[in-house]
Amino acid sequence: MTDVLSIDPHTGEPRGSVATESTAQDVDEAVRAAAVAGAALRDRAVRVDLLRAAAALLEKDGADIVATADAESALGRVRLTGELARTCYQLRAFADVVEAGAYLDVIIDHADPSAEPAPRPDLRRFKVPLGVVAVFAASNFPLAFSVPGGDTASALAAGCPVVVKAHPDHPATSVLCARILRSAAAEVGLPADVVRLVHGFDAGPELVRHPLTAAVGFTGSVRGGRALFDIASSRSRPVPFHGELGSVNPVVVTARAAETRAAEIGAGLAASYTQGLGQFCVKPGLVLVPDGPAGDAVIQAVVTATVPSGPLLDSRMRAAFLAGVRSRAALPGVTEPLKAEEAGDDAAPLAVRPGVLTVAASRLAEGGPYRELLEECFGPVTVLVRYGSPTERDAVLGALPGNLTAAVHLAADERDDAAAELVARLSEIAGRVVVDGWPTGVTVAPAMHHGGPYPAATSGSTSVGASAIERWLRPVCYQGTPDPLLPPELREANPLGLPRTVDGVRTTS
Amino acid sequence: MTDVLSIDPHTGEPRGSVATESTAQDVDEAVRAAAVAGAALRDRAVRVDLLRAAAALLEKDGADIVATADAESALGRVRLTGELARTCYQLRAFADVVEAGAYLDVIIDHADPSAEPAPRPDLRRFKVPLGVVAVFAASNFPLAFSVPGGDTASALAAGCPVVVKAHPDHPATSVLCARILRSAAAEVGLPADVVRLVHGFDAGPELVRHPLTAAVGFTGSVRGGRALFDIASSRSRPVPFHGELGSVNPVVVTARAAETRAAEIGAGLAASYTQGLGQFCVKPGLVLVPDGPAGDAVIQAVVTATVPSGPLLDSRMRAAFLAGVRSRAALPGVTEPLKAEEAGDDAAPLAVRPGVLTVAASRLAEGGPYRELLEECFGPVTVLVRYGSPTERDAVLGALPGNLTAAVHLAADERDDAAAELVARLSEIAGRVVVDGWPTGVTVAPAMHHGGPYPAATSGSTSVGASAIERWLRPVCYQGTPDPLLPPELREANPLGLPRTVDGVRTTS
Repeated sequence: MTDVLSIDPHTGEPRGSVATESTAQDVDEAVRAAAVAGAALRDRAVRVDLLRAAAALLEKDGADIVATADAESALGRVRLTGELARTCYQLRAFADVVEAGAYLDVIIDHADPSAEPAPRPDLRRFKVPLGVVAVFAASNFPLAFSVPGGDTASALAAGCPVVVKAHPDHPATSVLCARILRSAAAEVGLPADVVRLVHGFDAGPELVRHPLTAAVGFTGSVRGGRALFDIASSRSRPVPFHGELGSVNPVVVTARAAETRAAEIGAGLAASYTQGLGQFCVKPGLVLVPDGPAGDAVIQAVVTATVPSGPLLDSRMRAAFLAGVRSRAALPGVTEPLKAEEAGDDAAPLAVRPGVLTVAASRLAEGGPYRELLEECFGPVTVLVRYGSPTERDAVLGALPGNLTAAVHLAADERDDAAAELVARLSEIAGRVVVDGWPTGVTVAPAMHHGGPYPAATSGSTSVGASAIERWLRPVCYQGTPDPLLPPELREANPLGLPRTVDGVRTTS
Repeated sequence: MTDVLSIDPHTGEPRGSVATESTAQDVDEAVRAAAVAGAALRDRAVRVDLLRAAAALLEKDGADIVATADAESALGRVRLTGELARTCYQLRAFADVVEAGAYLDVIIDHADPSAEPAPRPDLRRFKVPLGVVAVFAASNFPLAFSVPGGDTASALAAGCPVVVKAHPDHPATSVLCARILRSAAAEVGLPADVVRLVHGFDAGPELVRHPLTAAVGFTGSVRGGRALFDIASSRSRPVPFHGELGSVNPVVVTARAAETRAAEIGAGLAASYTQGLGQFCVKPGLVLVPDGPAGDAVIQAVVTATVPSGPLLDSRMRAAFLAGVRSRAALPGVTEPLKAEEAGDDAAPLAVRPGVLTVAASRLAEGGPYRELLEECFGPVTVLVRYGSPTERDAVLGALPGNLTAAVHLAADERDDAAAELVARLSEIAGRVVVDGWPTGVTVAPAMHHGGPYPAATSGSTSVGASAIERWLRPVCYQGTPDPLLPPELREANPLGLPRTVDGVRTTS
């Protein structure tokens, strides 16, 4: 049995053992138990209660959760308090989604013997849960994208039991949150096993391979995510893998924007790329800045801004960050106006300082080793790419892999066709387009889309916002089924008062 | 250059060469041309025109199309005339879907600086086309699931150009239909290359591998479909693969149903499993019949019904069908009350006769070689499984892989909990549950779901019905974007009159 240690990221020192790594047998037992418990999730009303009870219990133990998460992640109590609020908001938002019932997508087409081109039987369709969902917790959000996070909330909302693979950066937080979710289940009369937790690197592939695993939610690196995606896709019965893998989140600063508000843009960028020490999937990692004095002024504002130092989530990330910056900085033509480096002191020997790199767009066009600059470097660094023309700018955008976000900063009166075309161009390479803002801060709202072309996401789905529930559902159609044998969601009299589309007409209840 | 021959399935003799097999270079050229042409599909109105023009032109050349398809498929003019009507209906139904615009799923959340837990920016989301869609035509539907079929119609409706891989069983029909679709494009002012056609076995993998291919639609065998799914999933940038692979479409006859209407059920089954000579993805291939005299009467009615003989779609399928029946019939305990066999005469030397196999549920429970009986055998054969108890029946259902459909025949007054539980059980293993009816005949309607757990489908999507369009779309969210820079679909004044959800309230226009 291998101990799972909680580590202090300031020092790299273990804080204590919080669990043991899950064996293949443990994973099997967890998935089977979740599958059995899942039957109890059929009732929508109890899922609403579960999600709301979970939010309330998380809030009740909020101080303990925030302290534990901070001790393991060094993300700070302010940020983690906000993240907890977001997590609870999200749980309640999904409770509202379940209660409203529109996500069931009830469609009823009555029989029509005279229909063309063929007589139509009575058809009734809605969506049902897929089964056990495997959730891989993210390093950088110990709460909102981990045990009690969006994948878990949306899966439970859909009626799917969940087995979470804890992230090794916050096992104590994971254990604490899993216990709270399981208490919430018990409180509303559900088996606690609707949520299970597993630990350890080997538990990941085991979980994805398990025959009863019906779908996977993942937030993490391209390398780890792709390995698990490949397992999910190569199973004898492949399962959907909704992964959020990696993104550089390009930002374009137009020439006119730089001319009119260089200082504001530079300060905004400095705050955004260093927020959470750059440990966000939506960190702006590549910024297209125009050549010339106005662009110089943007860069000047970025590199002179006051930015925080601190420890990254773990020492492996710290090493990857420092090595990633060094290898990019070593490319000919790359400058380093602000040097990312070790910044340890007695309190936090593992701290690092943010950095900024610059490179000419013409260099990126050479490809080869310069392609590294188009890949995500997790942590507080951003690459400023100087461009001389819209053509050069578009060539860089065209060379990028898929992104979660793409942003543009315009001048206040820049509302012409060229600007509209640029916005349209950005929509082709990202799941979310941001104008005159920064990508960090992903609002939990129905219109949010947190996903994008591969590798930003491995599917067309979102992991944030109401439609995240769609990932864990499949449609079922009932044909010619007598009313008493239909699930209540599809009965003629609409006993559950659901919104539905009947013979092409949408009714709200 | 290898000739693509049109073959007469009655005799196996070539009717003539209709094209040459596409080289890798041809496929590359086709995909690139389609990608370029695709930009012209941005405008919804022109897509509506395209789909309606295609339907009108197909009808205009209907006699020629039906004659050509019949000469290559031997499916008969009545069936093919119906299939053409279905195909045109489908094209027009998708035109209506595009016109209505609800599929765009427009969601607008206005900015709310006082929102909890964080201020909310203006967010606007809708769905955009993925890019070039590769469509693999099905052997058994030369029209409705081939060049002008549902995958093509839904992809064009979504705004995606299409490259169709013709099925070798009907290359002349494919060439003819592709020419008509391209004429329709030209007629409405679109580049003809929004539809391209490729031929030949090697063109399939090339098409799925092509970097500009954004998604795949497939209807065919488990073996072929899985090979292409694996290619799609293992690309450096994986693409969604919406495949319909295989299904035995179980049917349960309850003891009370057999007691009350054995003759009707037997006759219905005989008609359903031999319709189109059993060459339907929804053919009832495994029927659970109760032990005892009532079940015997069902079987008697099935095997004494008058059933058609005729040629299958091609000689490879004929060989696979005859071999598949022989190997199943050779299993100990399997009886063959109606023997499927060669039935050639001068007019159709390759004709076959339908057959029926029976086996005890207890044998299936042995697994091993009996698992072959749980797999689809394409062609006019069905396996009647005798069961002694609901437990035995459920064990067979539990051993089945995923299905497109699962049906149950009940007695007229059988509306009790046991019946409801059985219907619910069937919904777990199939995408469509049919009560007191047969799975053949897939209605084109909004509530239809033609898909199901793997291998029935490789994704949660449907290939029939309005929601088939969802397969070719991805959401994009715009954040803080000034009105003039938004796509018209998302502008505040709703200039296109689209249904949308604004701040949680759904409006119809």
